[in-house]
Amino acid sequence: MNKLIYEGKAKQIYTTDDPDIYLQKFKDDATAFNGLKKDKISHKGEINNTISSVIFEYLASKNIPTHFLKKISDDEMLVKKVDIIKVEVVCRNVAAGSLVKKFGFEEGKDLEKPIIEYYLKSDELGDPLFTDEHIYALGLANKSELDVIRKMALFINDLLLKFFKEKNIRLVDFKLEFGKDKNNNIILADEISPDTCRLWDMETNKKLDKDRFRFDLGEVEESYLEIKNRVAG
Amino acid sequence: MNKLIYEGKAKQIYTTDDPDIYLQKFKDDATAFNGLKKDKISHKGEINNTISSVIFEYLASKNIPTHFLKKISDDEMLVKKVDIIKVEVVCRNVAAGSLVKKFGFEEGKDLEKPIIEYYLKSDELGDPLFTDEHIYALGLANKSELDVIRKMALFINDLLLKFFKEKNIRLVDFKLEFGKDKNNNIILADEISPDTCRLWDMETNKKLDKDRFRFDLGEVEESYLEIKNRVAG
Repeated sequence: MNKLIYEGKAKQIYTTDDPDIYLQKFKDDATAFNGLKKDKISHKGEINNTISSVIFEYLASKNIPTHFLKKISDDEMLVKKVDIIKVEVVCRNVAAGSLVKKFGFEEGKDLEKPIIEYYLKSDELGDPLFTDEHIYALGLANKSELDVIRKMALFINDLLLKFFKEKNIRLVDFKLEFGKDKNNNIILADEISPDTCRLWDMETNKKLDKDRFRFDLGEVEESYLEIKNRVAG
Repeated sequence: MNKLIYEGKAKQIYTTDDPDIYLQKFKDDATAFNGLKKDKISHKGEINNTISSVIFEYLASKNIPTHFLKKISDDEMLVKKVDIIKVEVVCRNVAAGSLVKKFGFEEGKDLEKPIIEYYLKSDELGDPLFTDEHIYALGLANKSELDVIRKMALFINDLLLKFFKEKNIRLVDFKLEFGKDKNNNIILADEISPDTCRLWDMETNKKLDKDRFRFDLGEVEESYLEIKNRVAG
C-alpha cells in the first residue's frame, strides 16, 4: 500500500514496498507568489514528469548523483528516499525575476558569471533569500555540505546550459533541491521542469516556462508542451 | 555657504568651504519600515551626534579609518568627504529583528559566531538583503574591496562588543556604511547610534534602541538618553 507522506505545491510523495524508494507523482496544480495564485495547467503532471525524467537521466549519465530511478507512468517516477535539505539553490545565467524586481538588474542581460542563491525552503516563511551564514547558524547544512552543493549546482549549470542550447533554449535560471540518501551522500532531488526553470526560446526570447502562468501571458500548456517536445523529442 | 547635498532619513550632509570636508547634521526625524512609520524623537539629533562622535573617536583610537573629524555643535560633526558604497553591512551577535521574523531564529539567542549580512542601499528598492555575488554583478564593490569591508566590520564588532560591555550594554546587532575617500581608501562612514544598532541592557535585556520606536514600546527618548549617558558619561 502506497502511503502519501508529503504533498507539495506540484508533487506528491508516496512510500513504496521498498523502504528506500519513494514514488514521486507530478500534479497539474500550479501555484505562484507563494500560493497566492492557484490554478491547474492541463497535462502539466505528465509533461513535467517526462521532462524531469529526461533531464535527470542526462545528468546521471554525466555522473551527477540523483534521486531518480525510473519513470513508471505518465505522471509518476520512482526515486531514492532522501532527507531533503531545506535550502533551495537557484542558479542564474541571465537577469530575470527577483534579480530585476528586487535588485534592479536589467531583464535579459547575460550575467558575467553564474550567480548562486540560497533560499530557505519554508512555505510558512515564504522561501526568503538567505546566505551561507544563515544556513550554518540554522544548522541546515555545514560548510563542507554546502561546498558540495554549490559545486554540484555549478556543474549541473554547465551541463544544462549545453543541454538546452542544443534544443535552442536559453537557460535563464533554475532551482535545485538536494537531499541526503541513506548513506548520507548528498544527491540531487526534486524536479527540473518549466515549473522550476526559466527557459526562453533562443531566437525570440519567448518565455516557455512558469512565468507564462505567473503573469497571465497565455499559451501556458502550449509552452510546457513545446519544452517537452524539444527535450524529449 | 554650506549647501545641502544629501538628505537621508536621519541626517543631512552639507558642503563646507573645504571641498574634502562635509558637515553631517543629525535630525530628530525617525522613520521605520522603509519610511512607512514616521515621527520625531525629541533631541535625537543631539543624542546621536554625541554617541556617534564618541564611538567614532574610540574606533579611530583603535586604528579603524573613519570619516569622522570633529563634533562642532550639538547636532553637527565634520566628516571627510566620501563616495558612499551602496552596501549596508549588518553584523549580528544575537538573533533579533529580521533573523527572527524572516528566518525563524529564536529571539535573544546568542549566535555561535557573528553573522555578516549585506543589504542593497536603496530606498526605492526597500534595502533588500543580498549577497556578495549580487554586489559584484551590480558593480557596487569588487572582491578585494568587499574583503576589506568584511574584515573591517568583524574587527569593529570585536571592538564594539567590548566597548558596550563595559557600559553594561549587550550589542545585539548593528549596521555600518563604508565610503571611499579621495585617495580611494575604504573608510567607515555614516553613524553608529541607537538608530543603527540594537542595544539591550546587559542585565534585563531591556531594548534601548530604535526598536522602542518601531514597535511603540514607549520611553523612546529616555532610552536613547540612557545610551548617551552610559556611552558619553
